[in-house]
Amino acid sequence: MTNTARYAKTAALSLAAAPVLSREAGESLVDQIVRSIQARIDDKLLRSGARMPSIRQFAETHRVSRFTVVEAYDRLVAQGFLESRRGSGFYVRERSPMMAAAGHAHAEEAPPQRIDVVWLVRNMFRQYPAHRTPGSGLLPNDWLDGELIANGLRAISRQNQSQLLQYGNPQGFLPLRQQLQLKLAELEIAATPDQIVTTSGITQALDIVARHFARPGDTIFVDDPAWFLMFGSFATLGANVIGIPRLPDGPDIAKLAELAALHKPKFYVINSVLHNPTSTSLSAAKAFQILKIAEQHDFTIVEDDIYCDLHPGSSVQPATRIASLDQLNRVIYLGGFSKTLAANLRVGFIATTEEMAKRLSDRKMLSTLTTSDIGERIVYKILSEGHYRKHVDRLRGKLDGVRDKMVKQLERVGLTIDISTPAGLFLWADTGRDTNVLTEKAMSEGILLAPGSLFSPSQLPSTRMRVNVASMGDMEVLRFLERELGRG
Amino acid sequence: MTNTARYAKTAALSLAAAPVLSREAGESLVDQIVRSIQARIDDKLLRSGARMPSIRQFAETHRVSRFTVVEAYDRLVAQGFLESRRGSGFYVRERSPMMAAAGHAHAEEAPPQRIDVVWLVRNMFRQYPAHRTPGSGLLPNDWLDGELIANGLRAISRQNQSQLLQYGNPQGFLPLRQQLQLKLAELEIAATPDQIVTTSGITQALDIVARHFARPGDTIFVDDPAWFLMFGSFATLGANVIGIPRLPDGPDIAKLAELAALHKPKFYVINSVLHNPTSTSLSAAKAFQILKIAEQHDFTIVEDDIYCDLHPGSSVQPATRIASLDQLNRVIYLGGFSKTLAANLRVGFIATTEEMAKRLSDRKMLSTLTTSDIGERIVYKILSEGHYRKHVDRLRGKLDGVRDKMVKQLERVGLTIDISTPAGLFLWADTGRDTNVLTEKAMSEGILLAPGSLFSPSQLPSTRMRVNVASMGDMEVLRFLERELGRG
Repeated sequence: MTNTARYAKTAALSLAAAPVLSREAGESLVDQIVRSIQARIDDKLLRSGARMPSIRQFAETHRVSRFTVVEAYDRLVAQGFLESRRGSGFYVRERSPMMAAAGHAHAEEAPPQRIDVVWLVRNMFRQYPAHRTPGSGLLPNDWLDGELIANGLRAISRQNQSQLLQYGNPQGFLPLRQQLQLKLAELEIAATPDQIVTTSGITQALDIVARHFARPGDTIFVDDPAWFLMFGSFATLGANVIGIPRLPDGPDIAKLAELAALHKPKFYVINSVLHNPTSTSLSAAKAFQILKIAEQHDFTIVEDDIYCDLHPGSSVQPATRIASLDQLNRVIYLGGFSKTLAANLRVGFIATTEEMAKRLSDRKMLSTLTTSDIGERIVYKILSEGHYRKHVDRLRGKLDGVRDKMVKQLERVGLTIDISTPAGLFLWADTGRDTNVLTEKAMSEGILLAPGSLFSPSQLPSTRMRVNVASMGDMEVLRFLERELGRG
Repeated sequence: MTNTARYAKTAALSLAAAPVLSREAGESLVDQIVRSIQARIDDKLLRSGARMPSIRQFAETHRVSRFTVVEAYDRLVAQGFLESRRGSGFYVRERSPMMAAAGHAHAEEAPPQRIDVVWLVRNMFRQYPAHRTPGSGLLPNDWLDGELIANGLRAISRQNQSQLLQYGNPQGFLPLRQQLQLKLAELEIAATPDQIVTTSGITQALDIVARHFARPGDTIFVDDPAWFLMFGSFATLGANVIGIPRLPDGPDIAKLAELAALHKPKFYVINSVLHNPTSTSLSAAKAFQILKIAEQHDFTIVEDDIYCDLHPGSSVQPATRIASLDQLNRVIYLGGFSKTLAANLRVGFIATTEEMAKRLSDRKMLSTLTTSDIGERIVYKILSEGHYRKHVDRLRGKLDGVRDKMVKQLERVGLTIDISTPAGLFLWADTGRDTNVLTEKAMSEGILLAPGSLFSPSQLPSTRMRVNVASMGDMEVLRFLERELGRG
């Protein structure tokens, strides 16, 4: 008996012993065949070099169609379990050393010497139990509407397919930009579709703007506290990042004027509405003063309005956008849908002058060519069919429904929370302790916190932490805080 | 009669005169209502401020369900045609001056003083008739498989929806990275999933690598000719971009050694296989020499293998990847699916050491947070189910089927083409004329060419142009070339 013949025999025998394929199981026949052959190879019941039964043979033995076998063998080839030798059939593939470690679980990342931004952000992408992430910046999955996204995917799959094969428009999907014009008009910001550039979330919008305006050594102003990821992003450009103290109605204006005169910043990134992490909004008077200072010292204002749709509207609660005053002359306005629809869609946008939009679009083209149409088409569908408005109304209602209870629970376990105008996703709570220490302890118990130090460009330790109103309420988290804060 | 009553009357009348809704039309009832009300508003038959019939009224008059009317009114509100006033009903919305120019067609962009990269790239995104784009870098839509993408979208829409709501893994969708490990092993490149980072196409991969390695004033080597977009991308970093002359079997090694000693580059970007624009591939001997020079002068090799799957394999035609020799120590390997599956998916990847993968993944996080899972999940499905292999086999067969005829047609109209080892998507044809002039003329006749000057970092005029084998064959294009090249 030759080697090949022996292997062939082995393969045929072990397959013959395979469990009968079930037509009732939830799994397709193809999936069942693939899984059962994989298991036999992994268990060494089928050894490398073994010849598989021919497609005809397999189909007859297992009473399935040849198409089913062809599909199963193809998948096994694609997944590296079988190889096809021209004119000779299918063989179990040699597992080369190159395949080592494929699919193995990852080792957990060791905690760093000190908590830093990149490490914490990496950490935020790890899988925590959903209800133990008061430090998260997103709404929990069960608050969002996966069906809206799934419907969008299905609708796109039915559209003219050729649209998905080529590059999209570098400035972004035009119908979405037309829809964004409507959205901006409601905020009293006039922008034609030519003034709008889509981006892969606010993150890319900030990156593109920063790369356009800042050279190494230039100064960029941010709020203090503010969203931490941009500190790292601006630092890679060699920029000098300076924080402007944030008060309940906007930045400390005297400080802003003083620092602007001193540093001549290229631009100032500000959350006018529902500032991250304090959830406070800008007063009309301060919006006007900021604009005057920017004109005097000739810097650009980058207004990051990512939390826009979680605000009940300026008729209900004060909030002024600088872009509504300035109409996109000195203000570059940023928005997006990662917080309200789905972070994974990666849809954000920039609104600015037509001339600047063209320049920023060119810069986007040089760094990512185009954004994918898919996310933009889904967002367009949700906006234009009127689902978005209802969805964000529901979100606001739900946030309002849990906020008070959350504040009371947190106060009971020892946190101090000061909100004059309650709205938005975050509470900026004072624990009276160094929250870096608290965060490390929490992490060891599988709880994700967002310590105050992260939100400051100076990254000095802080007693504050950011609490996600929607992700809080797990008894374990409250018990942890009570235990930790109750001590001493 | 009050104003409001009069408007209400107007609205009711003009709607009553609306064409009867059709249950047989291909268009849904909601779409028919939306379209007919939009048309009436655009034609001023419904004037701003007019009160719309109530949902009940409308449903009764038109014998449709109230749900249908609710959905139609919602869309009209979302699209800015109607507004909903609490407790009072729906009204035709005032068209504010902010809405000017929404949805208007764009003016064509004026040709620039001289042809430059950004202008040409912008131009490539314009709509040309598909068969008149010999300068395109992509396969035509009808060569690709839209159904594969549509199937992927449908499959994802059926998956656990929560996966799409949160951020993906910043390093990329793990099953795709596992599948890429298999793909790389076939090229004799060993890389675990931890060594792979997904990107928004090769463009983002190059941007991330360049930002990591290059500071203003640093030198980057590219082939001459080479893919033009990266010249612009590297220029924005303040890097000095130098071209290494490309010969049929790889770069001019003497020149590479000389320039490396002189400039001490940070890295060298090379298409080893099916080089863009010449479609030539690297010999084993040159691959080894490049690696030796890189070691001697301590620079990184960035191997851009985007055309990988259009090559018939090194058993059929010589082609060596430097990463197969070096195993990702000094080589950073880039790949992607924009050429073979769909540019719009924006899926590319970087393979490197585990340590460098982590650093580049952090950098990706700072500039775009994560890439969208959607494209990565679609590519994973197509690879793992074995469709990809068959698809690229078909593409290669089709390219081989048209190439000879194309070469003969082009030679007949006066171009000189030199291919020793025919493969790939491009011909690097010599017209004997300044192809900048030719390109401008072609453009005025609606034909997109890719002049040789674009592919050189020096951007000097050239008599060469890049011809897409798959996009050529239109008689108008051939007649244009014959007319232009026959003259003089």
